Amino acid sequence: MKLYGYWRSTTSYRVRIALNLKQVDHTHVSVNLVAGEQGSAAYRSINPGRGVPTLVLDDGRILTQSMAILDWLEETHPTPALLPSDPYERAQVRAAALTIATDIHPVNNLRVIGRLKAMGHSQDEAVVWMNDWMTQGLAAFAALIRPDTPFCFGDAPCLADICLVPQLYNAHRWGADLSALARLTEIEARCLELPAFAAARPEAQVDAT
Amino acid sequence: MKLYGYWRSTTSYRVRIALNLKQVDHTHVSVNLVAGEQGSAAYRSINPGRGVPTLVLDDGRILTQSMAILDWLEETHPTPALLPSDPYERAQVRAAALTIATDIHPVNNLRVIGRLKAMGHSQDEAVVWMNDWMTQGLAAFAALIRPDTPFCFGDAPCLADICLVPQLYNAHRWGADLSALARLTEIEARCLELPAFAAARPEAQVDAT
Repeated sequence: MKLYGYWRSTTSYRVRIALNLKQVDHTHVSVNLVAGEQGSAAYRSINPGRGVPTLVLDDGRILTQSMAILDWLEETHPTPALLPSDPYERAQVRAAALTIATDIHPVNNLRVIGRLKAMGHSQDEAVVWMNDWMTQGLAAFAALIRPDTPFCFGDAPCLADICLVPQLYNAHRWGADLSALARLTEIEARCLELPAFAAARPEAQVDAT
Repeated sequence: MKLYGYWRSTTSYRVRIALNLKQVDHTHVSVNLVAGEQGSAAYRSINPGRGVPTLVLDDGRILTQSMAILDWLEETHPTPALLPSDPYERAQVRAAALTIATDIHPVNNLRVIGRLKAMGHSQDEAVVWMNDWMTQGLAAFAALIRPDTPFCFGDAPCLADICLVPQLYNAHRWGADLSALARLTEIEARCLELPAFAAARPEAQVDAT
């Protein structure tokens, strides 16, 4: 399968981690968001929302939206499991993951920041905007995970860790104040020691500049 | 179980529809977002993200994040099904639903609009902001659903319809131009003929003003 993504895209990063954890063979196709490649007619034909990532299966079938791709991966490649088997525990993991996927990432997306700038805001104002949503959202995330496990919810990384590590990449990038969130940066360090996470890092991608 | 929500909250509206479709007994507890009740210490103790909805089960267990609640409902109350059984088809439905849940709703959330106003923008500018994200995101949604079924993906409403109808409520509220999206408003009309959707409408809630 082919993963269309961008090195710095945190949603692409999520799917890269999951593909690596589940040892699913795939090739990367770079979509340069800064150059606007997501708006090309060719890309829009596979992803009408002009977002990354897009996963194209060997038979040509197309999957979009990172959280839907992650669910599909979990259902079709169940080992190692990214979600617990108990419905209530699954919902706890999903709620934490969605705190990042719905409350943090979308408001800091490249297109939203571009829109703020088109409305007259400076880069400095955009960075304050991003960091405020990140510190607020990550504090909520920290309150939703377990307090004392090696990873967010247990002894192995799950969907919440897969969403956390890319979001923290972005938090570091923009200098968000994570001093009150040591539990999260400790989990991040533990994740990045794993080859599946390390190989998925933005800096490790072929389109990194 | 108790559903903490707000009549105009589109995420609360999603869960109300699903509870009604699955005929799950529940009581509503109003959290007045405009009055800031989501920031109270009592509410933050059950929902650290200060969002609605929150579903509190009879044994006191707590579920947050509407999309996680909907997955939990689907897993614990499978009839009628809100997702197809085939993993690829499930991913298609999820991708459409997430286009609303991640690309549209979060950027138009009350707290984001409040932030824009705190940054000096007028109500008129906020409305343009909301409507632009809605028309752009709903066009992507329309490209992801089936072209010729009574509901988004078949003969019965699914997770995509459950996300669509509340988002269209918001689109109508702010006067978004839906003239190019007749397929969506036709599906909306079909949904609202069903008692489960009609009873979940914001106007039908006890806290509606």
